[in-house]
Amino acid sequence: MKAGPLLETVIYADDIPAAQRFYEQVLGLSLFRAVENRFALFRCGEQMLLVFNPAVTSSQSLQDGPPPHGARGQGHVCFRATLAEQALWKAHLPAHGIAIEKEMRWPGGGHSFYVRDPAGNSVEFAEAKIWT
Amino acid sequence: MKAGPLLETVIYADDIPAAQRFYEQVLGLSLFRAVENRFALFRCGEQMLLVFNPAVTSSQSLQDGPPPHGARGQGHVCFRATLAEQALWKAHLPAHGIAIEKEMRWPGGGHSFYVRDPAGNSVEFAEAKIWT
Repeated sequence: MKAGPLLETVIYADDIPAAQRFYEQVLGLSLFRAVENRFALFRCGEQMLLVFNPAVTSSQSLQDGPPPHGARGQGHVCFRATLAEQALWKAHLPAHGIAIEKEMRWPGGGHSFYVRDPAGNSVEFAEAKIWT
Repeated sequence: MKAGPLLETVIYADDIPAAQRFYEQVLGLSLFRAVENRFALFRCGEQMLLVFNPAVTSSQSLQDGPPPHGARGQGHVCFRATLAEQALWKAHLPAHGIAIEKEMRWPGGGHSFYVRDPAGNSVEFAEAKIWT
C-alpha cells in the first residue's frame, strides 16, 4: 500500500489573524474558513494549507473534533514556482514588506528562495526540479 | 498573485530512523534521501513529504544550505483516501501495530480517521470531500 496524495499541509502560528493576512492578502490563497485565534484554513490547488494556533489546538479538542495536535517553533512550507513566477514573487513580496531571506541554487539543479511568514515559518518558492 | 500548488509538506521527528520506517515501510512512500538523525525525504505523488529532526535543523544550517527551521510538538499531516482506501488502511495499519486513534464523520460530509506516527504526529486519512 502507498499513502497519498497529500490532502493537508499544516503549519502553526500564535497570531492567526496575522497569518491570515499573510497567506490570504500577500500570497493570494483562498480562505476556506477562519476562527480567530484558533485556525485559518486555505485552499491551495488540490490541497489545503492549514494554519493552527498550537496554544489552542494542542490542548483543547473541539467537542467530537479531531485529535489534538500543535507544534511550536519555525516550521517550513514550500510552494512550487517556476523561475518566471519566482521573479514575480521577488518583486511582489518586498513590496509588501516581506524580505527575501535567502536564495538557493540547488546542487542537483533548480532554484528557490525563502521568506518568513509573520510567525517565523520558513516559506520557500521552488522549482519542482529541485526534487529530480 | 496566488501561491501554489504546494511542493513540500514538512513534519518533524526526533527519531529519523523510526520515522523513516513508518513512512517508508508502513505507509509505502518512496524514499528520496535520508541522512540519519537529520532528515528523511519522501516522494508523495507530485509532492514531497519531508521529515526533519528539529534538534538538528533548527540550529545548524548546512553550509550554503537553506535557512534553519524546526518545530517541536505534535504536528499533523493528512493523506487523501477514499472510503474504500480507508477500509484497506484500517486493516493494514493495526496489522503493523498502529492503533486507530479516532474516526471522524465530518458535519459537512466525508469521513476520515487518525493514527499517530512514531513521533506523535497526527496522521489522517481523509476523503477529499471533507473540504467541499
